[in-house]
Amino acid sequence: MSLVSEPAAPSMRTAVPGPTTNRTKEELDAVIDARTVQMVIDYDKSIGNYIADVDGNTYLDVYAQIASIPVGYNNPTLIKAATSPEIVSALVNRPANGNFPSTRWLTLLREGLMRAAPPGCTQVFPAQSGSEANDLAFKAAFMAYRRQQRAGSLWTEHEEETAMKNQAPGSPDLAILSFRNSFHGRSFGSLSTTRSKPVHKVDIPAFKWPQATFPQLKYPLEAHVEENAEEEQRCLQEVENIMSSWHCPVVGIIVEPIQSEGGDNHASPEFFQKLQAITKAHGISLIVDEVQTGFGATGKFWAHEHWDLPSPVDIVTFPKKAQTAGYFFSNENLRPDKA
Amino acid sequence: MSLVSEPAAPSMRTAVPGPTTNRTKEELDAVIDARTVQMVIDYDKSIGNYIADVDGNTYLDVYAQIASIPVGYNNPTLIKAATSPEIVSALVNRPANGNFPSTRWLTLLREGLMRAAPPGCTQVFPAQSGSEANDLAFKAAFMAYRRQQRAGSLWTEHEEETAMKNQAPGSPDLAILSFRNSFHGRSFGSLSTTRSKPVHKVDIPAFKWPQATFPQLKYPLEAHVEENAEEEQRCLQEVENIMSSWHCPVVGIIVEPIQSEGGDNHASPEFFQKLQAITKAHGISLIVDEVQTGFGATGKFWAHEHWDLPSPVDIVTFPKKAQTAGYFFSNENLRPDKA
Repeated sequence: MSLVSEPAAPSMRTAVPGPTTNRTKEELDAVIDARTVQMVIDYDKSIGNYIADVDGNTYLDVYAQIASIPVGYNNPTLIKAATSPEIVSALVNRPANGNFPSTRWLTLLREGLMRAAPPGCTQVFPAQSGSEANDLAFKAAFMAYRRQQRAGSLWTEHEEETAMKNQAPGSPDLAILSFRNSFHGRSFGSLSTTRSKPVHKVDIPAFKWPQATFPQLKYPLEAHVEENAEEEQRCLQEVENIMSSWHCPVVGIIVEPIQSEGGDNHASPEFFQKLQAITKAHGISLIVDEVQTGFGATGKFWAHEHWDLPSPVDIVTFPKKAQTAGYFFSNENLRPDKA
Repeated sequence: MSLVSEPAAPSMRTAVPGPTTNRTKEELDAVIDARTVQMVIDYDKSIGNYIADVDGNTYLDVYAQIASIPVGYNNPTLIKAATSPEIVSALVNRPANGNFPSTRWLTLLREGLMRAAPPGCTQVFPAQSGSEANDLAFKAAFMAYRRQQRAGSLWTEHEEETAMKNQAPGSPDLAILSFRNSFHGRSFGSLSTTRSKPVHKVDIPAFKWPQATFPQLKYPLEAHVEENAEEEQRCLQEVENIMSSWHCPVVGIIVEPIQSEGGDNHASPEFFQKLQAITKAHGISLIVDEVQTGFGATGKFWAHEHWDLPSPVDIVTFPKKAQTAGYFFSNENLRPDKA
């Protein structure tokens, strides 16, 4: 027996977008930029994998709110959770968890988020979106790198003074390497690593961070074994070349297990194993962006579990299907020494 | 008759932090950085202006979750809203409002957010936090400035190509000016404008953006009229000097009506009027950060309403007391021409 009474099939009544969507879109556009609106949705009528628009059309939804709906519309278990006293309290009292956590916070972390932690990740840093999770992961990587360089000494007065002026050495020139066609978000840090489309990036100042080529594999894989191995090796060599020639230290590498927004691009477990080996050899952070691939999208809970890595990933960022966001981390050094 | 049964007075049973807080903090610290935890809170027992910790202490709360609680703990009207079908639907269906807004979105914007819009602000861009709101405001200022420079022509291929490499002219070198002792958030954009404490900034790469001095007024004001006017004039002149000498165009100025995190610093309405005049003369954006001061904290709904400005502020950022975040804007040019 199904818990959810989904329609038997999609059902279309109007052209898409329909007339009511178009009228509403026009009214919306007076107060908010509504050019990206595709359909105005009747969420009360949406159920399971089916989404209903205001024009009476019902679609089989394979897009799922930019991959943020893991268990369908109006899922009864989620409705139960959303009406629980715990959620109501969190909404009306807006706890600043860093300073004034609720009595429930420890249990929520242990029995909620930490149960989903990737292999070897023992700690979590919460965030509000995937973009913010990546920004926070970069900050952790920068702080860890500088702390290692500092080898136990305190911040100097000169570092404190220059940081206040956005100058080195206090605000050091350090980079995160990302891959061509990647998408990591649109805030200033994450956007400096995003390399999917000009429309995301033109006119926005960016950090002078480098990109390496993501492998472009040929299919079927079994017919191109040697060629694909060479392609991956070429990309790994490019990473090494960038790291030794970039104008400032590269202290982190961010990569998606499967490129998503920027194209459905894959690489082999060996590629990622060798990428991790590069980060280990240089003493820098490997950040795996599982915003799209995490929480069960690939047959394992985390896509990087397919790679059989010899040691845990330093940082795994997540949001969307998790219904929250943040990063898990395995490396104790990624927790800053000051708070 | 009061709707809320607050305690008659604070009541202390243990030292602060109490033993249960300390024990919980230690357990929390295994999975999350808990060094900033001040008290573990029993939100079920907190009410109105009184907050109760897990050690049985009840405090008069003048901090209000970093200024995010406008109407007290467990406010009955908020509880009613939090249990409404509309909130439940928003939580379980996570609408991507930009693409698939709910049938309720237009009404929510018109009868909710837009009713709170500052004078002359006709549009809103939503966000998830104050830091994100400021980042988004900067992006809008950058895009508006470049579009004006472009005077109707399209992006060039060279701009699109260089943007993908984080290079000018596609990713141009442009700056936002902020004031000494300001706090605008901790993401990469907003942190580049934050100038309160080294602990926020050391080891984090920052954009090479400038800061001007915020007026340091002497009190009582009536005894220092001339001196304070000179101080404000000096700061405004510094803004002008920076704008004419900075290594790249300054395309926006962000300012708090009352500096908050960085100290309780005020300036006169005349100071802000003249600051707006500078931005108008240079054709750049004035961004007023009302994260702390907005939503009724100063006797008017928006603190900048005390200034009697001759024209509306370009951008007003908000979060915290609003229970949501984003920016309002008055200048149609701040809506990008591409989406």
